[in-house]
Amino acid sequence: MEDGVAARRLSCIMRHLHPLPSDDGSSSGRYYEVVPTSGSDGIGKQEDGGKSGDRERVILVVGAGDATGGAIAKKFASEGYTACLVRRQASKMDQLVQDIIDGGGKAHAFGVDARDEDQVVALVEHIEKDIGEIQVLVFNIGANVNFPILETTSRVYRKVWEMASFAGFLAGREVAKHMVGRGNGTIIFTGATASVRGGSGFAAFAGAKFSLRALAQAMARELGPKGIHVAHLIVDGPIHTQWTRGIVKESGQEPDALLEKQGFVNPSDVGDLYWYVHKQPKSAWTHELDMRPWIEKW
Amino acid sequence: MEDGVAARRLSCIMRHLHPLPSDDGSSSGRYYEVVPTSGSDGIGKQEDGGKSGDRERVILVVGAGDATGGAIAKKFASEGYTACLVRRQASKMDQLVQDIIDGGGKAHAFGVDARDEDQVVALVEHIEKDIGEIQVLVFNIGANVNFPILETTSRVYRKVWEMASFAGFLAGREVAKHMVGRGNGTIIFTGATASVRGGSGFAAFAGAKFSLRALAQAMARELGPKGIHVAHLIVDGPIHTQWTRGIVKESGQEPDALLEKQGFVNPSDVGDLYWYVHKQPKSAWTHELDMRPWIEKW
Amino acid sequence: MEDGVAARRLSCIMRHLHPLPSDDGSSSGRYYEVVPTSGSDGIGKQEDGGKSGDRERVILVVGAGDATGGAIAKKFASEGYTACLVRRQASKMDQLVQDIIDGGGKAHAFGVDARDEDQVVALVEHIEKDIGEIQVLVFNIGANVNFPILETTSRVYRKVWEMASFAGFLAGREVAKHMVGRGNGTIIFTGATASVRGGSGFAAFAGAKFSLRALAQAMARELGPKGIHVAHLIVDGPIHTQWTRGIVKESGQEPDALLEKQGFVNPSDVGDLYWYVHKQPKSAWTHELDMRPWIEKW
Amino acid sequence: MEDGVAARRLSCIMRHLHPLPSDDGSSSGRYYEVVPTSGSDGIGKQEDGGKSGDRERVILVVGAGDATGGAIAKKFASEGYTACLVRRQASKMDQLVQDIIDGGGKAHAFGVDARDEDQVVALVEHIEKDIGEIQVLVFNIGANVNFPILETTSRVYRKVWEMASFAGFLAGREVAKHMVGRGNGTIIFTGATASVRGGSGFAAFAGAKFSLRALAQAMARELGPKGIHVAHLIVDGPIHTQWTRGIVKESGQEPDALLEKQGFVNPSDVGDLYWYVHKQPKSAWTHELDMRPWIEKW
Repeated sequence: MEDGVAARRLSCIMRHLHPLPSDDGSSSGRYYEVVPTSGSDGIGKQEDGGKSGDRERVILVVGAGDATGGAIAKKFASEGYTACLVRRQASKMDQLVQDIIDGGGKAHAFGVDARDEDQVVALVEHIEKDIGEIQVLVFNIGANVNFPILETTSRVYRKVWEMASFAGFLAGREVAKHMVGRGNGTIIFTGATASVRGGSGFAAFAGAKFSLRALAQAMARELGPKGIHVAHLIVDGPIHTQWTRGIVKESGQEPDALLEKQGFVNPSDVGDLYWYVHKQPKSAWTHELDMRPWIEKW
Repeated sequence: MEDGVAARRLSCIMRHLHPLPSDDGSSSGRYYEVVPTSGSDGIGKQEDGGKSGDRERVILVVGAGDATGGAIAKKFASEGYTACLVRRQASKMDQLVQDIIDGGGKAHAFGVDARDEDQVVALVEHIEKDIGEIQVLVFNIGANVNFPILETTSRVYRKVWEMASFAGFLAGREVAKHMVGRGNGTIIFTGATASVRGGSGFAAFAGAKFSLRALAQAMARELGPKGIHVAHLIVDGPIHTQWTRGIVKESGQEPDALLEKQGFVNPSDVGDLYWYVHKQPKSAWTHELDMRPWIEKW
Repeated sequence: MEDGVAARRLSCIMRHLHPLPSDDGSSSGRYYEVVPTSGSDGIGKQEDGGKSGDRERVILVVGAGDATGGAIAKKFASEGYTACLVRRQASKMDQLVQDIIDGGGKAHAFGVDARDEDQVVALVEHIEKDIGEIQVLVFNIGANVNFPILETTSRVYRKVWEMASFAGFLAGREVAKHMVGRGNGTIIFTGATASVRGGSGFAAFAGAKFSLRALAQAMARELGPKGIHVAHLIVDGPIHTQWTRGIVKESGQEPDALLEKQGFVNPSDVGDLYWYVHKQPKSAWTHELDMRPWIEKW
Repeated sequence: MEDGVAARRLSCIMRHLHPLPSDDGSSSGRYYEVVPTSGSDGIGKQEDGGKSGDRERVILVVGAGDATGGAIAKKFASEGYTACLVRRQASKMDQLVQDIIDGGGKAHAFGVDARDEDQVVALVEHIEKDIGEIQVLVFNIGANVNFPILETTSRVYRKVWEMASFAGFLAGREVAKHMVGRGNGTIIFTGATASVRGGSGFAAFAGAKFSLRALAQAMARELGPKGIHVAHLIVDGPIHTQWTRGIVKESGQEPDALLEKQGFVNPSDVGDLYWYVHKQPKSAWTHELDMRPWIEKW
């Protein structure tokens, strides 16, 4: 967290626990790690538990927001995986980390700019070296914007791509380096309707999401025969968050009524779906699917 | 077919021919039904069990072959659903019915030509009236043929469509009639690569499979908002059967080696997948997905 | 050929000209042919003219309605092709035939049920034997219906498929038999939005159109390397006819205003498009495209 | 950018760098322009000619290579459009410019980095101000690379996207600014098989091409109702160039034999296709199509 290169590479989170040792053995490491206050006792006993030999099994969630990413992390943590969470501002993940720990799981939160190659490289190296094997990567960064084409700035076009495509490439490639050696692993990219349809005003967003789907297909076709399961899952429809509740309200609907009738995607639905895909045997891998509430138009 | 085990297990439909005894022993029924010798005891206790109020929960599997359809039936039966199995020759389902019963489940086998509207209408009415609520329909009839276009007879073109598309329409519509009234239900159509690609020699097969996918989409869009989950699941790659083993052997590969390396789709994988899709909450329905072994080219 | 079976096979048209000789030389043929009142003089001089060696070049239009099919026929006739027109009721093509003849072209109208294999086989044989080489087939039969799934009868589902898919298979296969021997030819299938999207209420129509697209792909992949250009062209949006004008009027719009702003597809646009695709060199074949008015939503 | 005729017709830009000698030897201006040796006399007389009121009609070809872009430019120039050609190194377009001029057309070559927003903005402003109305934009920059995912550097991933997607966005948006005001114009993006399929090793290239297709769809849906025709044309298969000839030779085939059998896409085929799409009336616009040689697998 201190000086120079290290500080630039990986942004740090300091939560309520102890500082991690830095590479040189001192305790003034460049980031802090959150470990569960109480144990992972028993986790290793589960058949689906997080142990891989002596090492922890890790899920890396890039884009660990309040909703989807958080729910995925919780699900995998509850199944014994150590959740490594990435978001630009680590502090925004405080509650998520606490929730996972309170549930008996393990979580580490990293304030990382996923568009920064050095940071991503350092992050993956660190996790693999110091925490455990990244068995699962979930790439979940969205960047849903809508602008008329004439009002779409190059900054927006580029930034949306960097967030929703380039960052996915960086994370995917870096974890694949380790997975290929082990001959297994799961990489899941989160898609949207804009992954398959370029609607009016969505040049930037659909451009990035189409691109991410191409990445998923290319990686699936190359890495599948090397034992790595790469999937692209389209989550269509409003995921239940404060933000989507606000949008619903503005549109004149009552959020609670919509929730009651199951018109929101429940974040835990996404967690369950990703877990299911991850657990598919090698004989039966899904590469692409969609998912939406029953009343959603498509 | 009357005596003993066979009669208990298999309901044969011999329509247009002689009337069959009904369940209560009268002779006014038009088919025979096989009921389990022993019990559904305990089934109702399962959380996912087959009871719906006082009625049995039924899965209707149209195209209950040795592999996929059978595995799906076994899975749902093990979860408490009464399996109603359809195939042209009921006798070919003897072993499947026995397996389900031996596993503590309930099964009824019907020798029905799924392309015959009268038979399908009668079948669905009978099940709804005498057995239970059809909560799930799985339409699973394939008709994979490959002929050069000039050698594709009109008989083949029509028959493949009748088996793989028209029969799906009949079964789907008939069960939907009951599901719409109840506001719930699951209808799953089994797809293949030929559902999305018209390869050389596949005019008939792809023609039927494309058509079935259109049916699934149209029904999903109309019936989804009425509470019915309609999905089209593409199973790509060889499902492990005696038949595919033979094909693999002819191609110079060793079937057991391919099985060992998980290059076959295991029928039970399909059962698990269909169960998962059926159990998705209304807030998170998958309408289309693919599934194949890790080494399959796509 | 007169009696019984033969007569049932091919329905006849008698227009204002002379009866064709039957195969046995008598003049009591099973159909009548329409020939231009004035000659094809000059046609052969055109670079794109209808002569193939000594034989006429023929375009067979199956589904030669007032709009699309008619416009396609007129375009090709104006380029020197002899137009063979197929519709169930030959009399409905009187005006079209007259228009082509008045324009200096040649046309033959056949009252044929395109779903009847014997009729289609006989038609193609007759044209190839007595009229000329079928260089181009355009299959253009639509059957756009919309019914809720529960109100879709098996008769409708089957009939729509027979009209929009099975008839396409019959015509395509029969002309391909001759084209393969010659190593060239063009087969164009007319698609619609329902060819790629199964909308609510479109189980029958989309089912048939999806199927036709599969046929086009399968034939293109098999027959392309044999020199036959097979294409599937999606015409989306209202084609300008009395019927669509009525629909527009009912919807509260003024048909002439829509026409003025180019919101209708002009039938001649379709003719031009099909001609362009037909004229593509072997080095540059289009297999699939869409086409719609500028204001059409898609 | 200077005076008179020369400035209006312009050619090579070497921005920020040193001025290039103009054809007449003067060194004034940051780029040099190529002027036709003989006049544009008569061009305005053509029905499809390049005049729009008093102004020239311009086609802007971004990615004016030896093959596709060049052939497109020649076709439009032969129809009376003034060709504005963009490539990084203007000098590489000398022959193309000369060919167009020799053919009686008008051409201006610009050495522009199409990924540089300032350059693109300045270029479009300059053309609109000093040369004529950009009636047509063809975006044609490819960047076909294939690397295993682990060997795909972030530099490659980003650069391919900048060339094949971001540059398309910049050019498309800038010309759209002018087209929207006039209520017409044509924008064509060149696609490839990688636009719709993410093959193994194509994470970067397919990522960029998928993205470009999303851009085309989004722009088409937004700008179509404003009178601007946006299309995405997939050119599949080897375009006949020295480079593809070399590849064919390496693969053991004889390039001339492949050419003879029409196995190469002829660049002029592409020119004809783009011209056809541009000339489509507003009532009949194609948004997406494919095109490939008859023997190409797809």
